[in-house]
Amino acid sequence: MTRRRLRDLGVAIGRFPTGPFNAITDVPGVHVGHATVRSADGQVHTGVTAILPNDQNVFMDRPVAGSFVLNGAGEMSGLIQVQEWGMIETPILLTNTMAVGSVSASAVRYLLTRYPGIGREHDVIIPVVGECDDSFLNDVTLHSIHEQHVFQALDAASSGPVAEGSVGGGTGMLAFDMKSGIGTSSRVVALEGLTMTVGVLVMSNFGKIEDFRVDGLPIGRELAPLLLSERRTKFYGSIIAVLATDAPLLPFQLNRLSKRVALALGRCGSYAAHGSGEIIIAFSTTNRVPRRAPGPTTTMQMLADRLMDPLYQSAIEATEESVVNALCMAEPTIGVDGNVAPALPVEPFLDALRKYGVVSTGRP
Amino acid sequence: MTRRRLRDLGVAIGRFPTGPFNAITDVPGVHVGHATVRSADGQVHTGVTAILPNDQNVFMDRPVAGSFVLNGAGEMSGLIQVQEWGMIETPILLTNTMAVGSVSASAVRYLLTRYPGIGREHDVIIPVVGECDDSFLNDVTLHSIHEQHVFQALDAASSGPVAEGSVGGGTGMLAFDMKSGIGTSSRVVALEGLTMTVGVLVMSNFGKIEDFRVDGLPIGRELAPLLLSERRTKFYGSIIAVLATDAPLLPFQLNRLSKRVALALGRCGSYAAHGSGEIIIAFSTTNRVPRRAPGPTTTMQMLADRLMDPLYQSAIEATEESVVNALCMAEPTIGVDGNVAPALPVEPFLDALRKYGVVSTGRP
Amino acid sequence: MTRRRLRDLGVAIGRFPTGPFNAITDVPGVHVGHATVRSADGQVHTGVTAILPNDQNVFMDRPVAGSFVLNGAGEMSGLIQVQEWGMIETPILLTNTMAVGSVSASAVRYLLTRYPGIGREHDVIIPVVGECDDSFLNDVTLHSIHEQHVFQALDAASSGPVAEGSVGGGTGMLAFDMKSGIGTSSRVVALEGLTMTVGVLVMSNFGKIEDFRVDGLPIGRELAPLLLSERRTKFYGSIIAVLATDAPLLPFQLNRLSKRVALALGRCGSYAAHGSGEIIIAFSTTNRVPRRAPGPTTTMQMLADRLMDPLYQSAIEATEESVVNALCMAEPTIGVDGNVAPALPVEPFLDALRKYGVVSTGRP
Amino acid sequence: MTRRRLRDLGVAIGRFPTGPFNAITDVPGVHVGHATVRSADGQVHTGVTAILPNDQNVFMDRPVAGSFVLNGAGEMSGLIQVQEWGMIETPILLTNTMAVGSVSASAVRYLLTRYPGIGREHDVIIPVVGECDDSFLNDVTLHSIHEQHVFQALDAASSGPVAEGSVGGGTGMLAFDMKSGIGTSSRVVALEGLTMTVGVLVMSNFGKIEDFRVDGLPIGRELAPLLLSERRTKFYGSIIAVLATDAPLLPFQLNRLSKRVALALGRCGSYAAHGSGEIIIAFSTTNRVPRRAPGPTTTMQMLADRLMDPLYQSAIEATEESVVNALCMAEPTIGVDGNVAPALPVEPFLDALRKYGVVSTGRP
Repeated sequence: MTRRRLRDLGVAIGRFPTGPFNAITDVPGVHVGHATVRSADGQVHTGVTAILPNDQNVFMDRPVAGSFVLNGAGEMSGLIQVQEWGMIETPILLTNTMAVGSVSASAVRYLLTRYPGIGREHDVIIPVVGECDDSFLNDVTLHSIHEQHVFQALDAASSGPVAEGSVGGGTGMLAFDMKSGIGTSSRVVALEGLTMTVGVLVMSNFGKIEDFRVDGLPIGRELAPLLLSERRTKFYGSIIAVLATDAPLLPFQLNRLSKRVALALGRCGSYAAHGSGEIIIAFSTTNRVPRRAPGPTTTMQMLADRLMDPLYQSAIEATEESVVNALCMAEPTIGVDGNVAPALPVEPFLDALRKYGVVSTGRP
Repeated sequence: MTRRRLRDLGVAIGRFPTGPFNAITDVPGVHVGHATVRSADGQVHTGVTAILPNDQNVFMDRPVAGSFVLNGAGEMSGLIQVQEWGMIETPILLTNTMAVGSVSASAVRYLLTRYPGIGREHDVIIPVVGECDDSFLNDVTLHSIHEQHVFQALDAASSGPVAEGSVGGGTGMLAFDMKSGIGTSSRVVALEGLTMTVGVLVMSNFGKIEDFRVDGLPIGRELAPLLLSERRTKFYGSIIAVLATDAPLLPFQLNRLSKRVALALGRCGSYAAHGSGEIIIAFSTTNRVPRRAPGPTTTMQMLADRLMDPLYQSAIEATEESVVNALCMAEPTIGVDGNVAPALPVEPFLDALRKYGVVSTGRP
Repeated sequence: MTRRRLRDLGVAIGRFPTGPFNAITDVPGVHVGHATVRSADGQVHTGVTAILPNDQNVFMDRPVAGSFVLNGAGEMSGLIQVQEWGMIETPILLTNTMAVGSVSASAVRYLLTRYPGIGREHDVIIPVVGECDDSFLNDVTLHSIHEQHVFQALDAASSGPVAEGSVGGGTGMLAFDMKSGIGTSSRVVALEGLTMTVGVLVMSNFGKIEDFRVDGLPIGRELAPLLLSERRTKFYGSIIAVLATDAPLLPFQLNRLSKRVALALGRCGSYAAHGSGEIIIAFSTTNRVPRRAPGPTTTMQMLADRLMDPLYQSAIEATEESVVNALCMAEPTIGVDGNVAPALPVEPFLDALRKYGVVSTGRP
Repeated sequence: MTRRRLRDLGVAIGRFPTGPFNAITDVPGVHVGHATVRSADGQVHTGVTAILPNDQNVFMDRPVAGSFVLNGAGEMSGLIQVQEWGMIETPILLTNTMAVGSVSASAVRYLLTRYPGIGREHDVIIPVVGECDDSFLNDVTLHSIHEQHVFQALDAASSGPVAEGSVGGGTGMLAFDMKSGIGTSSRVVALEGLTMTVGVLVMSNFGKIEDFRVDGLPIGRELAPLLLSERRTKFYGSIIAVLATDAPLLPFQLNRLSKRVALALGRCGSYAAHGSGEIIIAFSTTNRVPRRAPGPTTTMQMLADRLMDPLYQSAIEATEESVVNALCMAEPTIGVDGNVAPALPVEPFLDALRKYGVVSTGRP
């Protein structure tokens, strides 16, 4: 049976309209690619997801960026530099915890050969690599991510629809005791002649079923009894969220926007557990810093204060929907040691939503 | 008609039990006092709330402390020092924005005369004073808070039940287009032989009715039509939250706990608006730093990692309930310029909760 | 005998040229005014210094801003909002610790009456007020700063030369066991067709004589024996530094620049003592955010990376010279309880500098 | 000719005595090991330095930790978690920029096999790996750091004297246009019955000769003409500093102490260049957090406020001396492309110091 996204199940979160793909790629110039890594014997379920903030020009024409660490029991390499310089100059790569080092090294090699202009002046490259732990389904001791997978994810990056669920970096991830993975969503804010898109992509790997909420509704409490028998998952607690926008924001405004993504995680049921890595990175494609600026200054656009609030609300809506999309799209998986990750059970899920009046009683 | 707290209306948020008063004063040594300032002509609705973190000994025997600024379009004087030193050494005072300066000055005079041991060595005193803007109901140009009110709030501080709603610093505050003010709640976590209380007190002044949520449920959407006719409120966007605990936490753990209070505000409907001051301060009464330490070191207790998660959940629950308690207990108010702040309408509120199955159909 | 600035004594710090006044007012639009408050009986030595970041338009046309707290045992009210919004919208006022509250309240009243455009929409005003403790020379229990002094400092603010030493907020301050107060200096960086001025003003109240350094040279060790007999000062440990520039910087770049001011304090001899408040605020007059922006965005200029380093060096040089200027210009003072603050002894000071080859053997 | 440490050249920085080895290993339990990687053809000059914060027990018995990023154009993997949890649970590894990923991966494998207790519960391990760029002397495209080198550095770690200069991670590093590398120093503070050691180790790779200062004295200006002819170095701008202490500090106190290391870098001549990675990590061996705490709390000791200042001064002194030790001990090196890194010229260096009266005219 084909998995369907939340909206295709008849449920919309929030007030703002989505972009055409309801994906982070609705922000022009943002490309996403996956490399999914599985073994025939079921011991390997992992992968790499690549988000290009500015197509292949990110190193030479760098979007301004910001971030927020909701809980830092995790790793996003390169974040120190992003915060210092207020910009991002590499793709963002998402993978499993043990693969951060090798993915980072592979990304450097990729950029040196494929990106225009790079390496001519012996630049130092510090890639941004975020991780969650997929060891419940994936035998991490096999170190299954190799250079070819990083290249594959980067080569595959494109605009348009984004594959979700058990793909790329999300291949082995679970959330709320169910199979999760990659999810994405977007919102469009049109005000005062500006049309701004906010896109979010998550690698979602957090939460227990009892805490799962959809648009605030405690759906997880309804589903918990169904999952109890198979629930033998390790506790997972991490999520990486990437926010892209073409809204004309400065770095400090992107830090602020990242905090709202964190609020959305709270609405989904996260209490930011002690052992979780909940890290948000955000960038604006409209404000870019050229690596070799011809003149002494670069012109930036700063969004007026009064337009921040709709962006904040959009970021929250898109994040909530991304988290649920990851669950809606993920297939059930049997992994290492026979560990089982059930999929979100669609009919009971819809029944629970109906109970709260969110979907009509007619089948979507 | 007497206003009732959320639990007295038959609604409980979360899993953990409350302390005996379901108030911040359930944490031993924490005292709360109010001075409510009103004028007969209805132009003045303001006040001061005092929270004593360690009875009258806070200056000489200082609880460790932490904080988190969710959105900083507001002021909490003294916060720079609290963060630097990892402790709090004065009462926490809550008042209106324009009164921060005079309340701070009055607090210094109070401490010099009433607190044991203080002032003998010409110590510098930097009080912690948080604010929200009550100018929709209160004529702030009258500068109605005087030294006597600060002394009154501090003198009145006691353990036991805490007055809520339109009292003290919350006298002129609104939230979600309704009359709000002071709210409080607590949770008790008993694990591994430790019994730890988490108490929260808020001065709540944020949000629009459409965004109001109770335990995640979008109750505000149900109530919005009822309030539409009278809804002429200035947009309010601030909340000060004070978290007290006797859990043995270090300063960095209190910073972390403060972040979870922010998650709870998101669950209540806050998106941390651009113009809001959403500031959280937290302290632990168990770990205290003596001002004149007899020896070169002080012994502290640090809670084990594995016990942080129940504290996080408790902080979220107590914050959510505090915000709703402030609404439940506040009386409708007509203020300056005839501005009207309606109270939370109890029956429609209960009807909305019933719709989501939160309260039984029988009257509470 | 007239006190002279460091350069007038024949000593220059660093490589970059100064602006015409060697003062923070070399940045166009930046005005400085003082109100010096003394009593005939010698018990009162205090005051207020006002720095206007954008003449009288700061509230309506707000320079972007940043800050850094080197050690936070002090207070700068309003800093939370400056950091959140990346801009400053009030004058910066410097005064004694006990006066922060009343100076803040007075500043609100001043702005409401004197500043164009302010108050029409019931804006909340949170002034930026920094403090150091002048209680060694000033009887702080007399609360000698009144509204008139705040108005006086603000009214007096002008471009051009800045009075230094024992004036305004610096009237009662000491540094390195000697009379200190207000000091200022500037640097001009001309590169790639841009001419950028960095101006610094300090209210300097930190350090012990043994630690005093000039351009890194341990001059204090030479002077310590001279001051030993009269050295009965309370330990002082605070400094407020204000950096103004017309360099086209964004808020995060101003945070970074503020950190370099901290490095300069270290070079002057500060180890950022536990009890010190060493707080830096910085703003750029070139990038301003209109309060009522006509369109949805504001255009900003961002300085190219490669031009940051000369700005960093300039900020360090100007800060070091500001700290020494405050000492060079301050008059010896006898204050409350007969406490004595000696002036920097000029001839021994020059002798020490000669020993290190900094000034020629001929008299300057 | 044998290179000698700064003290062996007759120069002491500061007031506090050193520990027996004048090294970070003077803090009991702290071990240091190096793997130096060179090729016969002179194209490879790189390596790995390992600092064990608690011998081989760091994963199970974790010292509390803090950090400060002076300028973040660099990388220290794992820092997000150190800051979140206030502790360190892996060795600290220092290497070249391109090797961070592979060193991190190798460290995980090492810990899994060699450290007692680790891996039994499928813990996630996020090693702390700091980097500077050694590409002026080292052909980074050869990726010369392999697992064996990481194992070698970790296996070699011991107490006692620490090799300095061109060893381990410092093999290819330059500072102030001269060959630099690893440097270390320590200070002992004995007060109120407590004896506390502060040890610092740096991998120093920053600064231009004109900016080089020793104890504040502008020695670099004297040496610059000598080095001018051979000075064709790429600009280097990074330094990693590791501070170890047995002083009973809490995490927030270690953050504060790390800031003082930054002040020391400023005193050495750093202005924290735009492109530099100046990252400080600090830990206390006295306060440790057991991974599997038997009870619900761990007892910590917190140093009294009044004893922080001597620690701050000690940290500054030890950092300054470490930076100079790295120069004093490093051998001149010819690297990739024939690039030349001259050693600090000892006699001219001593002459310059004599000029400022720092060393006696007799030969040391």
